[in-house]
Amino acid sequence: MLIKDASILVDGGLLRDVNIAIEGSRIMGIGPEIRDESGDGEVIGGSGKLAIPGLVNAHTHLAMTLFRGYADDMELLPWLEEKIWPLEAKLTAEDIHWGTKLGCLEMIRAGITCYNDMYYIMDEAARATKDMGLRAFLSAVLFDMRPDLIEDAEPFIRRWKGDDLIVPAVGPHAVYTCSEETLYKAMDLAEEHATMLHIHLSETRSEVESFKKNCGNSPVGYLDSLGFLSDRVVAAHCTWLSPKDVSIIGTRGVNVAHCSISNHKLASGIAPLDQLARAGANICLGTDGASSNNSLNLFQEMKTTAIVQKCAHSRPDLFGAREVWRMATDNAYAAFGLDLGLRVGALADLALIDLKKPWFFPLAEENIVSHLVYSIQGGVDTTIVAGKVLMRDGVIPGEEAILDRAQKQFEDLVSR
Amino acid sequence: MLIKDASILVDGGLLRDVNIAIEGSRIMGIGPEIRDESGDGEVIGGSGKLAIPGLVNAHTHLAMTLFRGYADDMELLPWLEEKIWPLEAKLTAEDIHWGTKLGCLEMIRAGITCYNDMYYIMDEAARATKDMGLRAFLSAVLFDMRPDLIEDAEPFIRRWKGDDLIVPAVGPHAVYTCSEETLYKAMDLAEEHATMLHIHLSETRSEVESFKKNCGNSPVGYLDSLGFLSDRVVAAHCTWLSPKDVSIIGTRGVNVAHCSISNHKLASGIAPLDQLARAGANICLGTDGASSNNSLNLFQEMKTTAIVQKCAHSRPDLFGAREVWRMATDNAYAAFGLDLGLRVGALADLALIDLKKPWFFPLAEENIVSHLVYSIQGGVDTTIVAGKVLMRDGVIPGEEAILDRAQKQFEDLVSR
Repeated sequence: MLIKDASILVDGGLLRDVNIAIEGSRIMGIGPEIRDESGDGEVIGGSGKLAIPGLVNAHTHLAMTLFRGYADDMELLPWLEEKIWPLEAKLTAEDIHWGTKLGCLEMIRAGITCYNDMYYIMDEAARATKDMGLRAFLSAVLFDMRPDLIEDAEPFIRRWKGDDLIVPAVGPHAVYTCSEETLYKAMDLAEEHATMLHIHLSETRSEVESFKKNCGNSPVGYLDSLGFLSDRVVAAHCTWLSPKDVSIIGTRGVNVAHCSISNHKLASGIAPLDQLARAGANICLGTDGASSNNSLNLFQEMKTTAIVQKCAHSRPDLFGAREVWRMATDNAYAAFGLDLGLRVGALADLALIDLKKPWFFPLAEENIVSHLVYSIQGGVDTTIVAGKVLMRDGVIPGEEAILDRAQKQFEDLVSR
Repeated sequence: MLIKDASILVDGGLLRDVNIAIEGSRIMGIGPEIRDESGDGEVIGGSGKLAIPGLVNAHTHLAMTLFRGYADDMELLPWLEEKIWPLEAKLTAEDIHWGTKLGCLEMIRAGITCYNDMYYIMDEAARATKDMGLRAFLSAVLFDMRPDLIEDAEPFIRRWKGDDLIVPAVGPHAVYTCSEETLYKAMDLAEEHATMLHIHLSETRSEVESFKKNCGNSPVGYLDSLGFLSDRVVAAHCTWLSPKDVSIIGTRGVNVAHCSISNHKLASGIAPLDQLARAGANICLGTDGASSNNSLNLFQEMKTTAIVQKCAHSRPDLFGAREVWRMATDNAYAAFGLDLGLRVGALADLALIDLKKPWFFPLAEENIVSHLVYSIQGGVDTTIVAGKVLMRDGVIPGEEAILDRAQKQFEDLVSR
């Protein structure tokens, strides 16, 4: 496959008229004179378009896309107790399947090629994701209250280890829902199978305060005392941290999945990103679930992250466009060990963005990353994962049928 | 013209299969059985689409769309002194023309049918806006440093008074750039010609503090002592207010153009919206200019406003979707005296949104406003102002030529 005459980002600037040759799941050539040697004859016109390496959604619960708009503007506890948990208690594999596919559609439309998820019935999430062609790190969530989930964690890993798109991981939910024993088990599993560890960490003030009161340590300090924290960990949120917590997270090289929109919509708070970055944490961006965002769009996440951090520090010069762009790309590639980027040998996970939209004008060498972070309002029209075209010129085959089916599934779920 | 089988919002819910008949610039019928009696035979398919009354951008500087991405991530003073003011010193009527048209394209794509602007060379902004077919309240900005602008304020009003799309207004820039004499002159003009008054008010902390130090009064207290504040005023920003300021703004029924994204990106601060609303202020939403936003999209503005206010108050139940939706619609219609809404006799300023997008699923009677505020990522495909179709099925005639011409104009401006 050859993408012809696209523009690409080079050192944050714009290089025009570049061809990208893809063979199998990898980029085999990139440059102005590159030709297609795959022999499949497929050509995608890239003229007037920008090719970007795929964005990575570092924290979400994709099946919850089925709950989008079901409950908004509520206090956290009534939201969970009256709305979310009763629905979750009724979830079936079919709900997971169609919720996941609905979420995949939205991410494909937003140039996201890989996501990191923690939820229930993850074999079904994996099947749905493979059907859609996206790449995913999937953790079956672990809670003490559900010993069956803990028991299935290792079989789940074995079932999916080695898959070309699905990477199984271990997902202990949080320190307030998992015992020491469960956390150790998760660590052992991750060690034995060389997987990521995905956990919610210090999301709300009340959660952190009550943990401290009960355990005499912060969630971060406690996890570190177990030896849990390392660069194998993706810690979602990290909103309420002491200076010591920040220093631990930085020293251990933890990957922080920052969820700015969800943290604001649920009024959880503003994460100390600046301190985390300076301490050495690797900051990535996540949308969280569509029940608390309510979209699955990392461009929105980038803009929100940049502007709320600027305002929180009264420093418009902090969190510039290039820094925030790296969070959704390079930082995430490092976190998940993804061989990704627009270069020879890398995975062919990428998106094309139509630059002929008002929000990309005026366009200059120096402002393209600013436009991607601050002004984009659409235009992703082609998304490719592992060399397979998932959306072309704005068309995702079968999209309408999935939308209709997801709608029926939601109606069935709430009336069940 | 007949819009056939659209859905509309009724009391925040969804009413399906409604026809909307438009004759001239007004809605002449609306309901399931309504037929077209205009005789023009034009039919727009509304099936699977939501018709909304047009959104109103209550504060912007549209020609500055030409500066989008020219300077980001800078402290306010160097940003103004090194970047924005040097460009503004070179502005020609052609810059204003193409910057305005570029901004109009973006707003048409986002369902904005009317905007409120304050800038230079506004006759050209008015001509460009009329070419594009949008409705606008335009103020020629008034500064003491430019007596020529003050002198032209009344002739400008006379030139445009009575126009079908352009409503002239009076725009004293701010209390720190306009003398008492200029402010009185602006009030007299607004009184004599029954126009709106458009002013920047208490945007940054340092501006408010230095005004207080020099004048012994807050900007709000000072304006009120002149008798300036009334429901004829649109005050942009209102970020730094004392409780007394809030009470004055509420009592006078001032229309506040809240610019959440710009205030965050420039790190100006978080406006006390909750207090303002409770005091009786009429809160509308503005994008501010694309040099500080960097987009002109009120859906983004609604989401940002809701989530940052929730977080600032640690109250996820505050600033619900319906309240924020009203800021971009009903509150703005009241502020500008616009006879607008989906009802018989109202101005035919409206947009159609394609509901067959992943971010609108699942769709239920109760969650459509939530989707419009929290999850929309595009889908406005038809925009109509005063009964004239500006965009149909995503196509704006002549768009590409305007984009190319605006690009050339920007390149000319920066190299001038």
